[in-house]
Amino acid sequence: MKKANQLREIEIIPNFTKHAAGSVLIKWGNTWVLCTACVEEKVPPFLRDSGKGWVTAEYSMLPSSTLTRKERESKKGRPDARGTEISRLVGRALRAAVDMTKLGERTITVDCDVLQADGGTRCASITGGMVALALAVKKLESEKKLEKNPILNFVAAVSVGICGGVPTLDLDYEHDSTADVDMNIVMTDKGKFIELQGTAEHNPFSDSEFSLMTALAKKGFKTIFRKQKDALK
Amino acid sequence: MKKANQLREIEIIPNFTKHAAGSVLIKWGNTWVLCTACVEEKVPPFLRDSGKGWVTAEYSMLPSSTLTRKERESKKGRPDARGTEISRLVGRALRAAVDMTKLGERTITVDCDVLQADGGTRCASITGGMVALALAVKKLESEKKLEKNPILNFVAAVSVGICGGVPTLDLDYEHDSTADVDMNIVMTDKGKFIELQGTAEHNPFSDSEFSLMTALAKKGFKTIFRKQKDALK
Amino acid sequence: MKKANQLREIEIIPNFTKHAAGSVLIKWGNTWVLCTACVEEKVPPFLRDSGKGWVTAEYSMLPSSTLTRKERESKKGRPDARGTEISRLVGRALRAAVDMTKLGERTITVDCDVLQADGGTRCASITGGMVALALAVKKLESEKKLEKNPILNFVAAVSVGICGGVPTLDLDYEHDSTADVDMNIVMTDKGKFIELQGTAEHNPFSDSEFSLMTALAKKGFKTIFRKQKDALK
Amino acid sequence: MKKANQLREIEIIPNFTKHAAGSVLIKWGNTWVLCTACVEEKVPPFLRDSGKGWVTAEYSMLPSSTLTRKERESKKGRPDARGTEISRLVGRALRAAVDMTKLGERTITVDCDVLQADGGTRCASITGGMVALALAVKKLESEKKLEKNPILNFVAAVSVGICGGVPTLDLDYEHDSTADVDMNIVMTDKGKFIELQGTAEHNPFSDSEFSLMTALAKKGFKTIFRKQKDALK
Amino acid sequence: MKKANQLREIEIIPNFTKHAAGSVLIKWGNTWVLCTACVEEKVPPFLRDSGKGWVTAEYSMLPSSTLTRKERESKKGRPDARGTEISRLVGRALRAAVDMTKLGERTITVDCDVLQADGGTRCASITGGMVALALAVKKLESEKKLEKNPILNFVAAVSVGICGGVPTLDLDYEHDSTADVDMNIVMTDKGKFIELQGTAEHNPFSDSEFSLMTALAKKGFKTIFRKQKDALK
Amino acid sequence: MKKANQLREIEIIPNFTKHAAGSVLIKWGNTWVLCTACVEEKVPPFLRDSGKGWVTAEYSMLPSSTLTRKERESKKGRPDARGTEISRLVGRALRAAVDMTKLGERTITVDCDVLQADGGTRCASITGGMVALALAVKKLESEKKLEKNPILNFVAAVSVGICGGVPTLDLDYEHDSTADVDMNIVMTDKGKFIELQGTAEHNPFSDSEFSLMTALAKKGFKTIFRKQKDALK
Repeated sequence: MKKANQLREIEIIPNFTKHAAGSVLIKWGNTWVLCTACVEEKVPPFLRDSGKGWVTAEYSMLPSSTLTRKERESKKGRPDARGTEISRLVGRALRAAVDMTKLGERTITVDCDVLQADGGTRCASITGGMVALALAVKKLESEKKLEKNPILNFVAAVSVGICGGVPTLDLDYEHDSTADVDMNIVMTDKGKFIELQGTAEHNPFSDSEFSLMTALAKKGFKTIFRKQKDALK
Repeated sequence: MKKANQLREIEIIPNFTKHAAGSVLIKWGNTWVLCTACVEEKVPPFLRDSGKGWVTAEYSMLPSSTLTRKERESKKGRPDARGTEISRLVGRALRAAVDMTKLGERTITVDCDVLQADGGTRCASITGGMVALALAVKKLESEKKLEKNPILNFVAAVSVGICGGVPTLDLDYEHDSTADVDMNIVMTDKGKFIELQGTAEHNPFSDSEFSLMTALAKKGFKTIFRKQKDALK
Repeated sequence: MKKANQLREIEIIPNFTKHAAGSVLIKWGNTWVLCTACVEEKVPPFLRDSGKGWVTAEYSMLPSSTLTRKERESKKGRPDARGTEISRLVGRALRAAVDMTKLGERTITVDCDVLQADGGTRCASITGGMVALALAVKKLESEKKLEKNPILNFVAAVSVGICGGVPTLDLDYEHDSTADVDMNIVMTDKGKFIELQGTAEHNPFSDSEFSLMTALAKKGFKTIFRKQKDALK
Repeated sequence: MKKANQLREIEIIPNFTKHAAGSVLIKWGNTWVLCTACVEEKVPPFLRDSGKGWVTAEYSMLPSSTLTRKERESKKGRPDARGTEISRLVGRALRAAVDMTKLGERTITVDCDVLQADGGTRCASITGGMVALALAVKKLESEKKLEKNPILNFVAAVSVGICGGVPTLDLDYEHDSTADVDMNIVMTDKGKFIELQGTAEHNPFSDSEFSLMTALAKKGFKTIFRKQKDALK
Repeated sequence: MKKANQLREIEIIPNFTKHAAGSVLIKWGNTWVLCTACVEEKVPPFLRDSGKGWVTAEYSMLPSSTLTRKERESKKGRPDARGTEISRLVGRALRAAVDMTKLGERTITVDCDVLQADGGTRCASITGGMVALALAVKKLESEKKLEKNPILNFVAAVSVGICGGVPTLDLDYEHDSTADVDMNIVMTDKGKFIELQGTAEHNPFSDSEFSLMTALAKKGFKTIFRKQKDALK
Repeated sequence: MKKANQLREIEIIPNFTKHAAGSVLIKWGNTWVLCTACVEEKVPPFLRDSGKGWVTAEYSMLPSSTLTRKERESKKGRPDARGTEISRLVGRALRAAVDMTKLGERTITVDCDVLQADGGTRCASITGGMVALALAVKKLESEKKLEKNPILNFVAAVSVGICGGVPTLDLDYEHDSTADVDMNIVMTDKGKFIELQGTAEHNPFSDSEFSLMTALAKKGFKTIFRKQKDALK
């Protein structure tokens, strides 16, 4: 079993499927997410004739990805609130990686489909989604569709928390469901924050606990950004 | 115009409407939210026979609350993703104020309906919703339905951000739409964090910028918690 | 308690909120409805290039407006049948007040959101909605967007019924739920009918009872039209 | 062509289909409605253990019933507002014909499906639905399921209006779409009103015009109630 | 009662209703389906500017058509899976009857609404729908809108099965619900297959059983194609 | 490139994910489907207290599985008609493999999620789903929850068609989209038909063409059933 200050094993398999412009299977411990990036040569109405592109994301869990089978959203006739929220988070995170003017008037949709869940699926989605996005950009470059590289920086995400009083890096499902505090941090590979989402349903936390958690996260990000770059070699 | 380190004017009018157990109109600058707390003597299925209660929240904007009229969710046939996300945030925040065992097997639903929006509607909802919740608890006490006071602590929320390089407290709509960083902070009246949600779509932020923002927020919370208590006198 | 031939107290507060072109809070006894009129410079497809405008209305009740909390329509995934029916009634009534050719190719949407309900919400919506509509027209005039005043006449509405055998004006919730006959009457300020909707689930009614009810209504309309005009001064 | 004070030809064919307890095809001029009454041995939740029954109605138009094909509601994913409103009207009208205590704890659902529309579909639905309901009651009686006849009185409906200044009985589609006033009247066979719905989108109407219209309607009802009874012989 | 190698009585009544370009009531034993064909002078997006037309179908059952009342799809807020599947089958079958280039850029929608069901509703829909389609084509010809007849061949359908070990033609509801094998066969009047759908939930079937069933079907098709042509005379 | 009478390469990877009772990744050429079987200790209402179990299936395509990205069903708010139809087919096929009395009152849901599509996804779903189902049954046996093995026989599926006049086994996407006839055949490992679905949108087919196609299918089934059994060893 991993220690509180360690990451789980992370493997990023590039070009997993063949139709999407970028495709990655990220295995983060027992959390597996298929991240794909598809390119469409059009933008949403609010960006038409702006010269700018768009990046968006959709997150969903397969019914059999969870311990107990999860009903499909299409059966319920409405998107799942938690899933919609994560889709929005992943989209915001990945947009922070891209210079939309350099991307040009096209949309990249990053789909994050969870094949198997064991905690940290949104962090795996952002981390794997970044690689799928980079692969799609590479493909656009190889097709001579981009003048300049639109990638501003890499982004990745990791969770931290406080479990039984102990600041902990990279919560799996068991940790997550019992943690006093659960925080997801999205950072750039230049060490700045893109998004912080810390929640304390069980026990409020202090400034100093916050500092301990961000320190742990920064430690983990070193490995994570290295894994991303290795996958792209 | 208010300074970067100031709050807008806040007024909390208790007992605004008469059917809900607790009802508050919070006017936070030009942001007006009607917060009501209704009590039902039943709990969701996952809590049945647990002896525990539940607190949940629903957030929605009236069509005419925004600068340009906003289409109704019921017309679109699905709940609005942003609204659902804020409903979940308000619910989590308010649950951190209540000892569910002392509440007993009943549900308090806090509705936050925005009559007029000018930035910071989610923070006004949490802050006003806490007062509506406290009024509903008072009513339950006056009806001899509670043995012990289930309020663990008060919670409130405020936004902070970085606007044109300046750390800024309490963003109105104009600030919000141009800020580099936008962070919503939910705290207890004992000075601990319940929820942190910081987003940097335009410009990533550093640890020290984070510290400046939380310091501003803490300054604002003093006034905010006082307003809540004054409304309950 | 009011007598059978009296109206409840009516107060119409103009310019209640600030984003809509016209905004009114009507307090009709304990029934409170926020009526707002928003202008859009476009018309529905069937009126494009006709030179004519359109007036439409949407009616909805806040969840906490009723004695027992009412579930939101967006949660149920479909508009509420009763609410849709009232929306259509309010729209028809207000269209009878406007010369669409003089309005020009624009749409005025009147939103009637019930903050607190105690019977007669559809009549309050029509009566308050008329004032919001007039305020929006005034605003268009002050912006020099209209050549001629498109208001043909004022419209208002009141309920009448037969309660315990007694013809009664202006039914509150308690009256409404026990009345043998419940009739909503929409009239112009020139004394003509726009809409009659009389229903007798408990006890069919005769011609002469109909005459007694309309006589009562006409008496009430004098006060109601005066209240509308006072609010616009 | 019929005169302004005449009814169109009305034919009521009983037992048109075989699965429903009561089934009628009503041909009212070129308006054809299949009205069926199905019995279920249960009641809605609000009537359980009350000893009372329930009557409800559903109205819908086949896609090919109108001049231009009408899209199916199920395709649009939501019930049609006009159809829902008419369903509610038909239900209220038919409930006025039944003593729910004598019906016992069962529900009769009257489906009114318009095969061909030429104006007056809601009146044909109420008039034909009444016969289908009566046939279903007869069947319950023949099965010895009722102690007493629950039919209080017959109900029927007819439209009247003012077309080009002329008070007119029984509007067909061409009349209906140009009428200044359109009123649907539901009466009992004892000459009392169950429901009045008069609408003047084009031209408000006076008390005396109202009297002329109701007089015309009463004349028409004599024939209509006779047609109903003939169909049941 | 009919023998295993016989068809039920089939009657096809042309021009049953008047608004649709083609309209047929097909009575196939106690299965009655109203089949109408409406023409619109436009095509779906994927065919625009192709010079080709389109034929599509929609199948639905009236609530009172079944032994026990069937809830309306619009009430459930989603189309019925079985109904959608049959709509697709009927559409495919009827498209096989038409040369889309000769039809020109217009859409014919064939609505099949089951008034009364007793097994074989999809076969009655295809068979009756073909006649409605042919009537609509005749109308287009009489209006001089077609240069050449677009009908390639007639199509019709019949069910066959194995009931209690006996190969059986034309299953009614009672047969259908107990059959070991149920197969729907769509053929052209030139004796070729358009669609085969055989299902064995209870008992798998062999090649030779398949041959016995298709032989029975071919025998039935002779009568069925004659009925279609008689209706068009 | 494969010959007309050959199968594509098939690989069935058992135990691909870990939460479901049975899990298989089937790679059938470039068509990849994740098939999982989840067990719930309850049955649908129509089987309660019958002592019988139930097997059902759900089929869906990931957005990035197709050449052009496919919009999610949950975004459209309704299940996809083609997907629903395939779900029903897979369910029927798999139910033919199980003795429901021996399964006992539990439900096995087989999810077939297409990760990558290149024709034949429904056949891959049935073939892979059978293995997932068998793995789930093995797990139930190892948990001592079954008295007797409920598997009656294995089922599998393959497509055949006529492409450019040539009877062809196992159509990939390119073949499928140009075939004159496309037929999916579901068989038991005992050589009997469970389901036949043959469609000829382009060109009707004859009895003898049907025989050529079924002969090809039977040849393919030998390999397919061997692959299933190998995966279970």
